[in-house]
Amino acid sequence: MLSPQAVHNGETPSPHHRILTPQFHSTVTLRKLRRFNSLILVFRLAAFAFSLASSVFMVTNSRGSDSPHWFDFDAFRFVFAANAIVALYSLFEMGVSVWEISTGATLFPEILQVWFDFGHDQVFAYLLLSADSAGTALAKTLKGTDTCKASNSFCVQSDISVALGFAGFVFLGFSSLLSGFRVVCYIINGSRFHL
Amino acid sequence: MLSPQAVHNGETPSPHHRILTPQFHSTVTLRKLRRFNSLILVFRLAAFAFSLASSVFMVTNSRGSDSPHWFDFDAFRFVFAANAIVALYSLFEMGVSVWEISTGATLFPEILQVWFDFGHDQVFAYLLLSADSAGTALAKTLKGTDTCKASNSFCVQSDISVALGFAGFVFLGFSSLLSGFRVVCYIINGSRFHL
Repeated sequence: MLSPQAVHNGETPSPHHRILTPQFHSTVTLRKLRRFNSLILVFRLAAFAFSLASSVFMVTNSRGSDSPHWFDFDAFRFVFAANAIVALYSLFEMGVSVWEISTGATLFPEILQVWFDFGHDQVFAYLLLSADSAGTALAKTLKGTDTCKASNSFCVQSDISVALGFAGFVFLGFSSLLSGFRVVCYIINGSRFHL
Repeated sequence: MLSPQAVHNGETPSPHHRILTPQFHSTVTLRKLRRFNSLILVFRLAAFAFSLASSVFMVTNSRGSDSPHWFDFDAFRFVFAANAIVALYSLFEMGVSVWEISTGATLFPEILQVWFDFGHDQVFAYLLLSADSAGTALAKTLKGTDTCKASNSFCVQSDISVALGFAGFVFLGFSSLLSGFRVVCYIINGSRFHL
């Protein structure tokens, strides 16, 4: 089950890495790295769950032809799209984390992996915050208008969707902190190992 | 004109710093650091100009008692507050940059300074993006309503204010990249010098 990258990253450490972490340290280091990766996995799972729930709440927010639809509002379309993107991305990153925990090696080459994770975490965190803020502003504006008077459940469901999106943003932000830490470790040590 | 910190940071480099950057490098390093700080100063100036313009455009967006006022809308209040905060912060950071360029030393102790800059850049960038997204969603919702039909110039001025806020966010984002780079340099070298 070991890919070429796995062999490159896990089995034969690079010379640079070998200098910094002597052989007798490697078991402890691996165990600590696994614990760190498990923490990332938990954050990814939470971000996935919340953003998936948010997009599902938004996409099911239509009740017959005479009530308002979520896709009639730009900001709600933005909320759905951003949450769906983050859910897909988190699912992919969960797979990457599970792969790394089980094989001890990164899916992509190590330098690409740490920068890929951090860069996408940052960009998607901004995207999700922007979408959720726009959704909040729209939801607040709709309160007291005919739309909410005609179908109060539509407005409540929109509120829930936006709130779930904010929860997803918080966990994506935590993931971003940890992946930023891995980038700094990589820059310092020439390896994602933080010991 | 040299503060105790200036003497600590500029005149007598710490032992760690002395090891990594030998004495004969210090002139070149100082010149490069000054060029880097000038770039940060330009970004800070742009972020200040745009966010100040945005908050001024928003706060002057009232035309008599019979037309709508900016402070009647939560999202517009948020846009004004976020832009005003970023303008004040950018003004302060411009002062810090000018101080560092002219004296060659940081205003606060070095480790505090690099983390202060990076942390505030990140938080305020999220704040500003959130406010501008909320403002965009509200401005889009107001289009075609009685508010915009009664006073079109109110809506145009809101749009301009939000757009200026986004420009401020872009330059604050650039500043954040550079201050993040300084943090990494500090972690690696034990000094904000990137050579």
